[in-house]
Amino acid sequence: MIAKLVRNAGIYTPEGASPSAGKDQGAVRFLPRGAMVIRDGLIEAVGPEEKILSSLSGREFDEEIDCGGRCVIPGFVDPHTHMCFARRREEEFSLRLAGTPYLEILRKGGGILSSVRSVREATDGDLFENTLVLALSALSMGTTTVEMKSGYGLDTETELRMLSVIRRVGRETPLDVVPTFMGAHAVPELYRGNGDGYVDLIVEEMLPAVEEQGIARFCDVFCEEGVFSVSQTERILAEASRRGLGLKVHADEVHDTGGAALAARMGAVSAEHLLAAGDEGISALAKSGTTAILLPATAYSLRKPYARARDMIERGVPVALATDCNPGSSFTESMPFVFGLAVMAMGLTPEEALTAATKNSACAVGMGAVCGTLEPGKQADFLLLDGETPAILAYHAGVPAVEGVYKKGEQVR
Amino acid sequence: MIAKLVRNAGIYTPEGASPSAGKDQGAVRFLPRGAMVIRDGLIEAVGPEEKILSSLSGREFDEEIDCGGRCVIPGFVDPHTHMCFARRREEEFSLRLAGTPYLEILRKGGGILSSVRSVREATDGDLFENTLVLALSALSMGTTTVEMKSGYGLDTETELRMLSVIRRVGRETPLDVVPTFMGAHAVPELYRGNGDGYVDLIVEEMLPAVEEQGIARFCDVFCEEGVFSVSQTERILAEASRRGLGLKVHADEVHDTGGAALAARMGAVSAEHLLAAGDEGISALAKSGTTAILLPATAYSLRKPYARARDMIERGVPVALATDCNPGSSFTESMPFVFGLAVMAMGLTPEEALTAATKNSACAVGMGAVCGTLEPGKQADFLLLDGETPAILAYHAGVPAVEGVYKKGEQVR
Ligand SMILES: [Zn+2]
Ligand SMILES: [Zn+2]
Repeated sequence: MIAKLVRNAGIYTPEGASPSAGKDQGAVRFLPRGAMVIRDGLIEAVGPEEKILSSLSGREFDEEIDCGGRCVIPGFVDPHTHMCFARRREEEFSLRLAGTPYLEILRKGGGILSSVRSVREATDGDLFENTLVLALSALSMGTTTVEMKSGYGLDTETELRMLSVIRRVGRETPLDVVPTFMGAHAVPELYRGNGDGYVDLIVEEMLPAVEEQGIARFCDVFCEEGVFSVSQTERILAEASRRGLGLKVHADEVHDTGGAALAARMGAVSAEHLLAAGDEGISALAKSGTTAILLPATAYSLRKPYARARDMIERGVPVALATDCNPGSSFTESMPFVFGLAVMAMGLTPEEALTAATKNSACAVGMGAVCGTLEPGKQADFLLLDGETPAILAYHAGVPAVEGVYKKGEQVR
Repeated sequence: MIAKLVRNAGIYTPEGASPSAGKDQGAVRFLPRGAMVIRDGLIEAVGPEEKILSSLSGREFDEEIDCGGRCVIPGFVDPHTHMCFARRREEEFSLRLAGTPYLEILRKGGGILSSVRSVREATDGDLFENTLVLALSALSMGTTTVEMKSGYGLDTETELRMLSVIRRVGRETPLDVVPTFMGAHAVPELYRGNGDGYVDLIVEEMLPAVEEQGIARFCDVFCEEGVFSVSQTERILAEASRRGLGLKVHADEVHDTGGAALAARMGAVSAEHLLAAGDEGISALAKSGTTAILLPATAYSLRKPYARARDMIERGVPVALATDCNPGSSFTESMPFVFGLAVMAMGLTPEEALTAATKNSACAVGMGAVCGTLEPGKQADFLLLDGETPAILAYHAGVPAVEGVYKKGEQVR
């Protein structure tokens, strides 16, 4: 048994194991001089230092972590990434900046299908190494749990290969990695003009194989004009649900196609992106309690208006934050950067952003009982910040204010 | 003599020793497979690798730096910072986010005068340590030359003390530090309602002392409604000029008071901020060739509209970029973050931003002959980027894409 004592910490943490919405989104517990007892990687107790110390009656610890009065928060949970890819698209980024139309970029071999090509061509080892670099960089900036989607394979073999690389990242790093099957990320070239045929493949071949291998926890579909329609999305998600996967939807990113409402109707755990979500979609999410995973770095990188985060919070939608880390529209693995954008550009309070980047995002990847808050029984995943409050993550602009990263009680940076 | 060879580098660099404007702002030299010969910290030669290698005829080097095809650019020059301060203002930031009016923040002891109080109370050692931490963090993200302003003293003794701490940072780190005297940063409490009396103090006591100690290179004035008027600014700058200091103006940050036009008229090297600069001010800068130092992280942190960078470039104003690092309105020392904002939020091309963050900013602090480009005779201040082009600095959002930092030929990170 290994026991550790964290003390002299300004602890800020959401509480509970289900998503917070509305006024509760910003309701976090604050212990001005807090302490935490950790046993075998789990939190045993957390509270005011005085109270914790007096309850210990001479107990010995293997390690004492004095936080010097600085702020301690739960580790970030990044609930939406496409971090498993083989090649960056730096040249395409420059073309896009220069105003090259997306269709021309596609003609030049860019876009998502170029990531599909490079993933298909990559060895497992290369794909693993590329993913590992980003995962470890994310970890160093405070991400202790990360979701990763497949979706650059678009054939059964490569989708399964991606999921197995994603699993390996979870096994060979301190990170908890939550795998999401996203065969429905785009229609592959082979099925151009035959989206329904590709949906058949997903439903009849991919999902059964994913279930058999037990290699994914969620299924996600890119529901968008020209990609997968609402009815195609529904068909895929219904089958995924039958096969025991949790549901997610890339919804209303470019057009309001009713993706948010679909996510709500089908009991998806989350609707993601939502840049174009309208009032109806937002109301549907609020009613069903579906979490909105917002990706401000994508809006930033695409120079688009941000999602209507304040409207969502005010109408009672639980909001979570993610990087969307991918080589096309959002090449960032930094949750502190996303936190900063959420506060500065979307108008969340630091407390709302904290809940969004920890508890709500943990719940959005099925980890709400395991991490995302600092409470007894949860994993001791926590960050020591270089500041006094979570606001430091926005105040120190563009510089991750994360001094120490602890995963299951172990310092990993 | 120490000789080094940098090879296999994608070299991107502006050229020359005077600011670039208009179409030239984005005209940078690109060597797809470049090499650089360094002798005793200076660049001896730079060119296509093949040409450089064939000119060497068996010469031996103390070190060979293989860049693996990645991008090499000049070190960043950050030409506008208030990095020399004693205490952060994290609590004030949170108040501001919560919508607390600035006047109430002032009543609660916040604002610039709180930084004045803490600098006056700080020991030289504490002030140095605080400045050092930020300076080294900036260096680690690629800043190889940095300007630092006084201006949290507002009495002769403390202003000189700040300038001597700033000089010490230059002596005890690899950074070139350019000191700017900014006694005219605010009117101190003692002179409330008697701005002219404080201007007397600056002109009659501070500037003579600064000249005598040879401790500053520039003089800067915050020309703004309710701070220093155009005529007060003119009086201070005229005296500074007589005493051999270069001139800078914090101009048109909040209101268009004609600060840019004044900077142009007085031959200032730069007008800085310019969020509210109007057409007349921009035209005046273009005509005089005064460099506009833009501070996008300040607009970001204050949630204000960005400066009209594209208009300035199109009208022929040389544009430079800086962090404005300070504890109030822009707490960031990251030039990569500023580069990203310049491209994503102000619409500069990566090449324009490169010139703005290297050569133009070097010229704006009187270092155009020394650094800011990769050319023979200049210091070997350069960065190895984690990418193929300068665009990586915007593409990898929120994560400094700087793999290696070299100052006078020495790797410092
Ligand atoms: Zn996505
Ligand atoms: Zn300033």
